[in-house]
Amino acid sequence: MPAKNSARKSKKTAGEKLREKEDPKIIAQKIRRIGEEIVGDINKHKDPEFVTQQRGRGNVEFDEKDKLLTLGDKTTTRNFLNIGHARKFMQTMIVSAKTHEYLEENKTAAIREIYYELKHTIGGSKENTFEEQTESDGVIVDLEHAVNSIREKLNLHANPKGTLYGDITLRDRKHNNDTFNAGKLGRGGWSIMSRVEPEEIEILKVDANYVLVIETEAMYERLVEEDFAKKNRAILVSTGGQAARGTRRLIHRLHMEAKLPVYMFTDGDPYGWYIYSVIKQGSMALAAHSDLLAVPGAKYIGMTLDDVETYELKNVTERMKEGDIKRAKEMLEYPWFQNSEWQRQLKKALSEKIRIEQQALANKSLSFVADEYLPKKIKAKDFLP
Amino acid sequence: MPAKNSARKSKKTAGEKLREKEDPKIIAQKIRRIGEEIVGDINKHKDPEFVTQQRGRGNVEFDEKDKLLTLGDKTTTRNFLNIGHARKFMQTMIVSAKTHEYLEENKTAAIREIYYELKHTIGGSKENTFEEQTESDGVIVDLEHAVNSIREKLNLHANPKGTLYGDITLRDRKHNNDTFNAGKLGRGGWSIMSRVEPEEIEILKVDANYVLVIETEAMYERLVEEDFAKKNRAILVSTGGQAARGTRRLIHRLHMEAKLPVYMFTDGDPYGWYIYSVIKQGSMALAAHSDLLAVPGAKYIGMTLDDVETYELKNVTERMKEGDIKRAKEMLEYPWFQNSEWQRQLKKALSEKIRIEQQALANKSLSFVADEYLPKKIKAKDFLP
Repeated sequence: MPAKNSARKSKKTAGEKLREKEDPKIIAQKIRRIGEEIVGDINKHKDPEFVTQQRGRGNVEFDEKDKLLTLGDKTTTRNFLNIGHARKFMQTMIVSAKTHEYLEENKTAAIREIYYELKHTIGGSKENTFEEQTESDGVIVDLEHAVNSIREKLNLHANPKGTLYGDITLRDRKHNNDTFNAGKLGRGGWSIMSRVEPEEIEILKVDANYVLVIETEAMYERLVEEDFAKKNRAILVSTGGQAARGTRRLIHRLHMEAKLPVYMFTDGDPYGWYIYSVIKQGSMALAAHSDLLAVPGAKYIGMTLDDVETYELKNVTERMKEGDIKRAKEMLEYPWFQNSEWQRQLKKALSEKIRIEQQALANKSLSFVADEYLPKKIKAKDFLP
Repeated sequence: MPAKNSARKSKKTAGEKLREKEDPKIIAQKIRRIGEEIVGDINKHKDPEFVTQQRGRGNVEFDEKDKLLTLGDKTTTRNFLNIGHARKFMQTMIVSAKTHEYLEENKTAAIREIYYELKHTIGGSKENTFEEQTESDGVIVDLEHAVNSIREKLNLHANPKGTLYGDITLRDRKHNNDTFNAGKLGRGGWSIMSRVEPEEIEILKVDANYVLVIETEAMYERLVEEDFAKKNRAILVSTGGQAARGTRRLIHRLHMEAKLPVYMFTDGDPYGWYIYSVIKQGSMALAAHSDLLAVPGAKYIGMTLDDVETYELKNVTERMKEGDIKRAKEMLEYPWFQNSEWQRQLKKALSEKIRIEQQALANKSLSFVADEYLPKKIKAKDFLP
């Protein structure tokens, strides 16, 4: 994958950056326009076609200026009269029509629901519209790209995961204007929704110095228990492993909209570092959506393999597994890991072949992470880029 | 495993039913007493021993009267001077001492944290206290049984998972007495903590007809979106698959303490039915803890394979996998599935070899589950036992 140094051109199908806020009516119109063009083609006895951005590594670029992953300008055209395209064309049409309906009727659906809702045997045939959810999922991604937005703005969503805690007041405009502070829900916190678009979920007030994003639910509970958020004026977000889209979107908004620094705290292993990199510059699979999902300004606070030495944690490390070794080798090559700090860290991992978990800090004491490890690093700005 | 028809005898080590509420000081004293007895043995030059309940299928019984799984009266004795027991004896002692410290100091820890906190190389040797977390986990279970309580009351916990939504007001006594209503947190809901013991988390008020426990987060989001809780005066709990202990404890309390009926809604497959059975009568692995975790009065609302016919959903079923077939065969034999309804359902699954997901109801329409499927079943009391 090439690392391009040029500023991004208007290479999106719709020719513009993705918008943080966009009226559902505008999105519905874009979908409608696609349909109208196809009807126009049919009326003109032309082969109807559907154009979307080409995905996959061959069209993914790392934007050195904006520091995020993005898609190149290659497009894919699907023709109804091409026998290899016809099935997918049909699927694209029914998903587009249903999504348009959701937007018009102010409904939302999980991507698994739209799959089930549209699955049926086509009249007069033995052909099902879909056999597997992967088919409808692929078509949804096509449509997101074709209208230059993200599925959440098409009223679609994946499963929720992740928790929010701290002195932040949110309002849900679609739920009686519920207004609540995520630091006043006991130690449980707020369960982050699958869709947290600004049109519906408003960030009313945040009183914090930074956002600390935490890989494991257990470490999140530790920090809540230690009253870390209050003592350090921090917002805590736990991702529970790889972050769900709703959680990525919320972190992105806390950074962009509420202007908070974002520090990421994961296990010290290639998988944790990869979770960080997805939060920071986006993922290859969703490169076109980085505008709304990535947090290029995020910093990495730990764990690092240097922590193992600094805090004498050798005894509570584990051997890296094959998958981690493979991942570390791949990461060494990614353009966004081409800086001396990460190159050194990844090479260290590959040479020592050990990993360290966040919770291993309990080896010092339960409160060590909250009283020493994190505050010290934040004070010294001891981050990886 | 035998299905005993006798009322439970006082066969627990401590000779009594588990208590919903118990002063941490009492638990600390019980641990202290174990330590004192061992010190006494040492002073008398006797071989110190640690006694706990025997676990595993050989000692699990189904209590026909209370309708829950329970442990028989077999015990296991571990002697320090037995070379095969010495390591585990040492582990039991350090976990007991540390747990006692947590209780005295009002600290809580995840079971992974206590593992890391106690892991070290024993002075003058190359022996580590633990090599794997499974070792400390096993010792924790021994200790829970020895003091006749659950780990949550020993200030230990596993990872949190699960979400709560509806007109229920909770208070967290250990967090500024935060008082909040889980129906006023937008559509996200409250992220259920890993420990929800009544000593800390109080159920102040519930305004509901029943609790609906939902297997998938996605179906939970659907029901929230449809305003199901308000329209039906229901409390919604999503488990996100197999329920975490904190979530089981909360459902148990809603049933026992707030006297609410509990209806369970899972995918229509042996795995979903198994999740239900663990909620209802407890699990074999934690048979001694059913008093505080099980909900013997729970009912099963769906999905069933009859739903497939009633609602013409054949087209959105899937083939059962090998694991499901194996599980269904095992479940046929369990004493608590010895009733005509479940025998019929399990045999139907084994003969048709299909499964149906909750979300497949979207095939009717997105709101079908909320407007028709659930209300109709609840009105007709169309449950499986």
